[in-house]
Amino acid sequence: MFIPSFNARRSTPVLLFLFSVALILILLSFYYFAVPTGLLEVWNDYQEPQRHFNTDDPVSACFVILVRNSELDGIKSSIDQMEKTFNHKYNYPYVFLNDDDFSAEFIENTKSLGTAEKFYGKLDEQMWGYPKFINQSFAAERRKEMVETQVPYADSESYRHMCRFQSGFFFRHPLLDKYDYYWRIEPNVDFLCDIDYDVFKFMRNNGKKYAFTLTFVEFMKTIPSLWDTVLNFRREHPEIVSQFPPKEKSLWKFITDDDGESYNSCHFWTNFEIASLDLWRSSEYLKFFNYLDESGGFFYERWGDAPVHSIAAAMLLRKDEFHFFHDMGYRHTDVLHCPADEQVLQKCSCNHDSFVWDDYEKGSCLKQYNRALLD
Amino acid sequence: MFIPSFNARRSTPVLLFLFSVALILILLSFYYFAVPTGLLEVWNDYQEPQRHFNTDDPVSACFVILVRNSELDGIKSSIDQMEKTFNHKYNYPYVFLNDDDFSAEFIENTKSLGTAEKFYGKLDEQMWGYPKFINQSFAAERRKEMVETQVPYADSESYRHMCRFQSGFFFRHPLLDKYDYYWRIEPNVDFLCDIDYDVFKFMRNNGKKYAFTLTFVEFMKTIPSLWDTVLNFRREHPEIVSQFPPKEKSLWKFITDDDGESYNSCHFWTNFEIASLDLWRSSEYLKFFNYLDESGGFFYERWGDAPVHSIAAAMLLRKDEFHFFHDMGYRHTDVLHCPADEQVLQKCSCNHDSFVWDDYEKGSCLKQYNRALLD
Repeated sequence: MFIPSFNARRSTPVLLFLFSVALILILLSFYYFAVPTGLLEVWNDYQEPQRHFNTDDPVSACFVILVRNSELDGIKSSIDQMEKTFNHKYNYPYVFLNDDDFSAEFIENTKSLGTAEKFYGKLDEQMWGYPKFINQSFAAERRKEMVETQVPYADSESYRHMCRFQSGFFFRHPLLDKYDYYWRIEPNVDFLCDIDYDVFKFMRNNGKKYAFTLTFVEFMKTIPSLWDTVLNFRREHPEIVSQFPPKEKSLWKFITDDDGESYNSCHFWTNFEIASLDLWRSSEYLKFFNYLDESGGFFYERWGDAPVHSIAAAMLLRKDEFHFFHDMGYRHTDVLHCPADEQVLQKCSCNHDSFVWDDYEKGSCLKQYNRALLD
Repeated sequence: MFIPSFNARRSTPVLLFLFSVALILILLSFYYFAVPTGLLEVWNDYQEPQRHFNTDDPVSACFVILVRNSELDGIKSSIDQMEKTFNHKYNYPYVFLNDDDFSAEFIENTKSLGTAEKFYGKLDEQMWGYPKFINQSFAAERRKEMVETQVPYADSESYRHMCRFQSGFFFRHPLLDKYDYYWRIEPNVDFLCDIDYDVFKFMRNNGKKYAFTLTFVEFMKTIPSLWDTVLNFRREHPEIVSQFPPKEKSLWKFITDDDGESYNSCHFWTNFEIASLDLWRSSEYLKFFNYLDESGGFFYERWGDAPVHSIAAAMLLRKDEFHFFHDMGYRHTDVLHCPADEQVLQKCSCNHDSFVWDDYEKGSCLKQYNRALLD
C-alpha cells in the first residue's frame, strides 16, 4: 500500500483537505441514498402517513355517472363502449346518481351491462337545490338577462344545479366513500380506443391526481366574475394559498397568460374526468368551493364545473400530478380527441383526419397545457 | 499550534480513526440540526403540503350544534354558559343543524345570544334517513328485541339516525366547509370554568386533533357486533391499516385491554368534542365509516357515535394528537368533570366533592387513557 510520507507541519493542510473531501463525500452519499430511501423518516418520529403500496395492489375506484331516467339509451351506449374498450378486463363498479329516484326500467337495463357491480343513489336538496344565501328571484332575473348572450343553457336552472353538484358535492355522496379514484362518464359519448392497461393503477402508481382527454376554452359570458372571485379568495386566504405548491411547480400557466391578471378561459373538459377523490375532499378545496359558492356565481352567472375544477386543480396540484390520456379516443357532442400516434391508432375506431379538437387553431388549450408543463 | 509528529506508516490508523470521528460528528450534527429544521425538505422535491402558520394566526373553527326547535330553552342555557365562560372573548361562530326547518322563534331567540355569527342548516335524507341497504322491517324487529335489554333509546329510530349522522355526516355539511376545527355542543349541558385562552389555537398550535373532557364505558348491548366489524375491516383492508400509526404510537390500548381480542367499551363522550374536521374527511375514516355503515349496525343494533369516533380516532391518530381538557368543568346529565387542580378550581363553579366522573371506581376510562398514553 502506498502511503505518501509527510512531516507534521506539512500534514495540516493535507488533513484539512482530506476532511473536506470526506465531508463532501458523506453529505453527497447522504443526499443520494438516505433521503430517497426514506431512511430519515425512521430517525424522525412518525409524522404524516406515507402512501406505501405495491404497484399490483388493487385500486379502489369506480365510474361516476350523473344521469336521468330519460337518458337510459344514451348511457347504455356509453357504458357499452366503456365495457368493450376497457372495463370487461378490469370490472370497476359503476355508481349512478340522479336527482330523482331511478326507475325500475333504468336499473334493470343498466344492471345487465357487463358484469361489474352497479350502485344507484339519489341526490338530495343539499346537493341539488338552492342554498339559503341565494336570492332566487335575483337569480331568475340574471338568467333572463343571460338568454340574450345566447350562451348554451343560459336560462336553465337544472344545468346550474348540475354544475354546482359536480363542483362541490358528488364526492361527498356516501356511495363514493369507499373509493380513492373515479372516472366520470356521461350519456352519449364515445370511447374509441382499446385500452389494454389498468387506467386506475396507472394513476395511483404514477402519483397522478387529475387526468383528461379534452381541453377547451370557456364562454366567458358564463363566468364574468369567476376569476375576480378566485383572486379575492387568494387575497383573503393567504393561509390556504401558502399550502399550494409554488406557482412554477403548479399548472398556473395553464389558466393564465399574464401571471394571474386574467383567466385565459382554459379548462379540462370535465365530462371526461379521471381523478383522485381526495383532491376534492381536501379542506383546501372545500374552502375554495365554499368561497365560490357563497359568492353566488353558480346561480347568478352560470359557472361550469369544468373551469371550477380546472382552476382549483391548477392551483392545488403539482404539474407532475396531471396526465393527458392522449392514447384514449373520446368524443362528446362534436368534439373529438383521437390519438395522433400511428401505433396507438390501430387500436382505435377514429382517425386523425376527422375534426379533432386538440388542434390548437380550433380552440383547444393543449398549447397552454404544454407550455405550463414544460416551463 | 500543537501538531503531533508521526511518520507515514504510523499515520494510517490515526487517519482512519480521525475519519471515523469526523463521520460520526457529521452524522450527529446532521441528525440534530438538519432533520428538525426541515432543511432536508428543501433538498427534496416539493411533496406533501406542510402546515406552516404563526401561532397567532386565526383558526377557522366553529361550534356545531345538532338541535330541534323544541330544545330551544336547553340550547339557550348551554350557549349562555359557553359565551360567559369562553366565547365572549373569542367570538367563534355557531352552526345549528336540524333534521327539520328551524322555526322563526328558534332563530330569533338564538341569534341574540352573544355577538358571534350564527348559521342555520337543515339535514337531508342522505344524512338523516335509511340507506338503501337497510332492511327496515328487520331493523324494526331488532329494535323491539332491544327494548327487553332496557338500554337507553332501545326503540328509538331518531336516536339511531342521530348516531349515524354524528358518525358519518355532520362534517360533510356545506356549512362546515370553511372550518378546520369544531366544538360540539348539546342542549342542557353546563360549562363550569372560565377558559382564558383560545382553545382552538391551543389545538392547532399543539398539533391536537381530538380533545375531550369525559370518558365513559359503553352499554355493550348496544354494540354487540361493533368490534367484530372493526376487526373484519382491519383484516379486509390492510392497505388502509398500513396508513395508521403503529399500534404503540396510537391510542390502541385505550380501546382494548387484550391487544384487540375484545373492545373494552371505553370511549370519549362525544356530546363534548373538540376535533379536527380533516380527521373525519380523510379517506381512511370515510372507508371505515362506510364499512361500518354497510354492516347495518347503526340500525340493526344501536351503535353510538361515541364508540365509533373513539375507536376510529384511537386507530387513526397518534397518541400525542389527543388532549384531555382537564381544566374545563363540564356536565351532561348527571355526569360531571370538575378540575382537580386547586388553582384551576378557583375559576370554576363546581367542586370536586360533587359526583365527578373521572374517578376510576365510578366507571370512567381515564385509567385506560393514561395507560395508553404512557405505555
